[in-house]
Amino acid sequence: MKNVKFPFEKLRTRRVDNTPGLVLAIAQDNKTKEILMVAYTNKKGIEKTIETGNVWYYSTSRKTLWMKGEESGNVQKVKEILIDCDGDAIIFRVEQKGGACHDGYRTCFYRKLKGSNFRVIRKKIFKPSEIYEKR
Amino acid sequence: MKNVKFPFEKLRTRRVDNTPGLVLAIAQDNKTKEILMVAYTNKKGIEKTIETGNVWYYSTSRKTLWMKGEESGNVQKVKEILIDCDGDAIIFRVEQKGGACHDGYRTCFYRKLKGSNFRVIRKKIFKPSEIYEKR
Repeated sequence: MKNVKFPFEKLRTRRVDNTPGLVLAIAQDNKTKEILMVAYTNKKGIEKTIETGNVWYYSTSRKTLWMKGEESGNVQKVKEILIDCDGDAIIFRVEQKGGACHDGYRTCFYRKLKGSNFRVIRKKIFKPSEIYEKR
Repeated sequence: MKNVKFPFEKLRTRRVDNTPGLVLAIAQDNKTKEILMVAYTNKKGIEKTIETGNVWYYSTSRKTLWMKGEESGNVQKVKEILIDCDGDAIIFRVEQKGGACHDGYRTCFYRKLKGSNFRVIRKKIFKPSEIYEKR
């Protein structure tokens, strides 16, 4: 994203699991409008997203910023950024390389409530073991 | 939603602004797939959503469950529930009556980053003053 400066005074951040300064970030496919994933980011993550053109999130468990696709290569190229009415959530409209989900699906929302359980409603598009190192 | 029982053992809740037990909930238009809003809910909110057919959220500021549309009439009829890979976020696919946003728009995400500010990219569909009591 060129010639763009995020007006951070419009953000209203939250403390999540003891990490302050977080904003909700939904990644949405720029073409199909599919919801790919949802995570948190912060001011620095938004700055790095705009600077590099790739989406950065904040991991509350690892307590660090991470670039989506840094391990798998499945990066998210940011195309547009939307903000909600009260400023505590943003949408990254992205071009998703491969799949967003580390389970091998295009989207992290690949299960639907059916009866008393969740049923897989999407096809796997890659084998996680071939893309991610054993963890 | 009939004959449905949510498998709560699949949920991974978070503490947000000192409220524990919360799950991220994205409301998505069941037909157009548009993202309408994002908020939090909890176990009780999911139960009430399934029981009543209308979506319930949890307000971290007011510290209470609330039914979307309880004041405005702009309820969200739940049609499907999706869950993400790590179980800390769900999507409510809904039929949205009127607009989801208390600012008078169909979606809370009515502004897009342009240059160094946010620009309104949607049309107002109702006058908030005619629907919400003065607050």
